[in-house]
Formats: sequence, C-alpha cells, structure tokens
Amino acid sequence: MTHHSIDIRIYYEDTDAGGVVYHASYLKFGERGRTEFLRHLGHQNSDLEREYGTLFLVRHIEIDYHRPAVLDDLLRLETAIESMKNTSFTMRQRFFRGEELIADMRVVLVCVDTNAIKPVRLPGIVRDEFINFIE
Amino acid sequence: MTHHSIDIRIYYEDTDAGGVVYHASYLKFGERGRTEFLRHLGHQNSDLEREYGTLFLVRHIEIDYHRPAVLDDLLRLETAIESMKNTSFTMRQRFFRGEELIADMRVVLVCVDTNAIKPVRLPGIVRDEFINFIE
Amino acid sequence: MTHHSIDIRIYYEDTDAGGVVYHASYLKFGERGRTEFLRHLGHQNSDLEREYGTLFLVRHIEIDYHRPAVLDDLLRLETAIESMKNTSFTMRQRFFRGEELIADMRVVLVCVDTNAIKPVRLPGIVRDEFINFIE
Amino acid sequence: MTHHSIDIRIYYEDTDAGGVVYHASYLKFGERGRTEFLRHLGHQNSDLEREYGTLFLVRHIEIDYHRPAVLDDLLRLETAIESMKNTSFTMRQRFFRGEELIADMRVVLVCVDTNAIKPVRLPGIVRDEFINFIE
Repeated sequence: MTHHSIDIRIYYEDTDAGGVVYHASYLKFGERGRTEFLRHLGHQNSDLEREYGTLFLVRHIEIDYHRPAVLDDLLRLETAIESMKNTSFTMRQRFFRGEELIADMRVVLVCVDTNAIKPVRLPGIVRDEFINFIE
Repeated sequence: MTHHSIDIRIYYEDTDAGGVVYHASYLKFGERGRTEFLRHLGHQNSDLEREYGTLFLVRHIEIDYHRPAVLDDLLRLETAIESMKNTSFTMRQRFFRGEELIADMRVVLVCVDTNAIKPVRLPGIVRDEFINFIE
Repeated sequence: MTHHSIDIRIYYEDTDAGGVVYHASYLKFGERGRTEFLRHLGHQNSDLEREYGTLFLVRHIEIDYHRPAVLDDLLRLETAIESMKNTSFTMRQRFFRGEELIADMRVVLVCVDTNAIKPVRLPGIVRDEFINFIE
Repeated sequence: MTHHSIDIRIYYEDTDAGGVVYHASYLKFGERGRTEFLRHLGHQNSDLEREYGTLFLVRHIEIDYHRPAVLDDLLRLETAIESMKNTSFTMRQRFFRGEELIADMRVVLVCVDTNAIKPVRLPGIVRDEFINFIE
C-alpha cells in the first residue's frame, strides 16, 4: 500500500461551538491532500487545465467520522488511489491523530474536458503515475 | 413522502475559483436544513442539550454531485427522515434548482449523551415527531 | 437614515470552539447583506458584470467587535451607503441582536472594469440608487 | 523589525467565483499566523486558557487589499507586534507573494479572564516575549 501524506493543524477556523472540528472541514482538508498529492507528482490544478484541457470534478463523497478532533490537534492525512476507470477514479483518504483513526473518506473524481464539461479519459501521464499509488 | 424545505441563496462565500459552488459548501447547507427542520418541530440545538442532555453527532455522510450550482442561484433543499434506529437515524437531503436535482445527500446522525458522549436512545418526543417525516 | 436590512441566523458553521461566532464569519455575512441590498435595487452581481462590464472589489474593511454572538442567535444586519466617490464607495454595516450592537463594519468597494481590472466610474443607474441610501 | 513568518498555500477552499482569494479568507490566514507565532513562543491557545485563565479576543480588524491572490499561489504571512497596552495589543500582519504586498492587516486583541470575560493584564511571560516582536 502506497500513499501520500500531509499534516493538518487544527485552528479555530476549523472548529465549531460543539468544541470539535466541524464535519464539513474534513472535505476541505481532503482537497488540500489531493492537491498536494498531485503537486508531489509534479502537477498543479491550474497546469492540468492549461496543458491537457482537463479538470477533476468531485462526483461522490462518502465519509465516516470515527472520533472527534479538537483545537491544536495535528492530524495526518493519508491519500491513496483506490481504483481507476476510464474517465474516473476513487481516492481513499484517512485522517489519523497518531495511530488513532479520526475519519475515513472516499472521493470519486471524474476527469472532464474543460470546454465541453464532458467526461474524458485521464491524461496518460497522470494515469501512469496514479497506478503507483493504488492501494 | 413528507419533507421539510428551505431555500438556499448562493453567495460568493459558497463558490470557488472553478466558478461553481464548492463541494464542501453543501454540507454546510445540509446542516442549515437539518437545524431548520428541528426548529420547525419546535426544537433548537441548544435546547435539546439543555432539556434532554443529548446532542446529535454526524456519524456518516454520502453525497452525489449531479450538476453544478453557480453564483446567485436559489436552491431548494428538501430534508426528510429516511430511517430510524434506537440511537441513530438517517436523513435524506436533496438539493434542487427548479426541478433539476443538483445534489443528493444521506446523513447518519447518532444521538449521544452530552456528558458521557455515549450513544443513547432518541428523546421520545423527537422520535414521535420524526416518524411523520419518514419518507 | 435609510438602510437595507436582512436577518442572519447563526448555525454551527459560523461558530468556533470558543463557543461564539468566528470573527471572519461577519465578513461573509456582510457580503450577503451587500448582495441582498443590490438585489433589492434590482441588480445581481452576475448582471452588473454582464450589463455594465463592471464589478465591485473589496478594497478595505474595518470592523469593531462589540459583543459575541452565539449559536441559534438571529442577528439583524443593517446596510447603508456612507459615502460615494467617483470610482469607489463606502458601506456601513451594523449587526444587532435586538437593540444590542454586536459588530460595526465599514467596507470600501471600488468599481472596476472587468477586462482591464482598472477603476472606472460607477454605472449611473447604480449611483443614482445609492444616493437614497446614504446615511 | 522582527517578525514571525509562515507560508500559506492557496487551495480551492480559499477562492471564490471571481477567480481570486475570497476576502474573508485573509482573516482565517491571519489567525493561523497569530497561532503559529504563539506556538513559536512556546504557547498554545488551549494552554493559555489552562495555565493563565486568559484568552485573546479579537476586538478590531483593519485590512487593506492591495492585489488579488489566486489558486496555487504561495503567500508569505509576516506577523509582528505593533504596540502593547495593559490589557490589549495590536498585531500587524502582512501578506506577500514574493516581494509583492497582497494585503496588510492590523488586529487588536484584548486579553480577557475566561471566567469573567473581563479585560485583564497580559500574562507577564507573554508580555516579555511580545516585546521582542514589536516592530
């Protein structure tokens, strides 16, 4: 199993009056993790659009909240490719505090042509790189 | 099928540089819809805690993004109870622009004791009211 | 003194772990108020761009936080035009809970040409309408 | 002039449909910068409350927006103490992209007793450390 990992520090902006991390904040964190995963492979969202005329749209998200995280926590977000199809792929993103699983998320992204906003095949170079990160 | 409905106006705060509503914003909207659904039944989040010593934690979310929404759109969010168990329940929340389905979300909430943060049975009065909103 | 007024309900998304409304949330509320003020005058952000080729950029904000607001509060946001210049104008936005002043904000917006991103005179029709809302 | 500096990467969550960083996002970034400044001095928000019974409330913010920032930008946020009084202090926070000034913010924070929510003198140790960061 290969994954890419980033750290997420919890600030006031991420929390709510319940004293814990607001449930929608994990989706923001997930997008940071996917963006840094792409950057690690040498791509930026803005470049993918310019060079290949494609962008990745979020089609589906599933998330399980296992334990609350709180202010000042330092979470580790692990991102991997779970599966790939012709025009879409599924990422698995898990949030840990030390060894403790905080939240577990699956995100289905579809590759679309930026002009037609129609699904298209993943750019070959991206596809080849993703294969190394399939769990 | 019985549901509770609120309108959601899209402001700049809800959008991203892709020109559409940011995917995490729908979770915020969903929470507004659930809160107004409870208020419609005569309950406030802060009261449930004070009166019954319980609060509802988000345990699981699934969301399908069907079509993008954009700045100045007026969405209709329909909220219903899909199923109930002893200590948890599932809400179905659908976002429409006119007749067009924009996003479709399921949220599993668990009722917990605010002291022990342990699952407890739903307060009887809430349970009785929810039954009318089961789809 | 003429102003336009909207109600703002406080949800979990607006609060932080300090148990109060997060300080940046007031800027989001302010933008809702300015947008509804424009809509009340018959304009939408997207129309201003299409019809006049102009948009309003935030140039400067000053905000005083007088009292904290909390979950489930219903705030009233009053928006007025404080002053106008050739290419910019200042809005005054005050947040109340009942008669209590919660926060007091001034926002300087500049009217820019959407192509050149250079300051230009306010569209005449907008200027004429704003004059009625000068405090 | 002594200051503390952090990097801020711009993600989709920080942007809006105008294609630039949303104006309220800078306040979130500012709070990250102040928190990391405190952490650099050996303090966490949660510790200050536990150890000294104090917390810092935002009383006033002024911000000038000089140039827009966009997706994938890497900003540098410089934080310094501008002045100190008995129970409050002013921080100056400037956002740069390379040498270009993007935004310039002043934040007045007041030190309050967490029980009485009344202004109190800054804890001596914090006061002594802040003096080194006065511009």
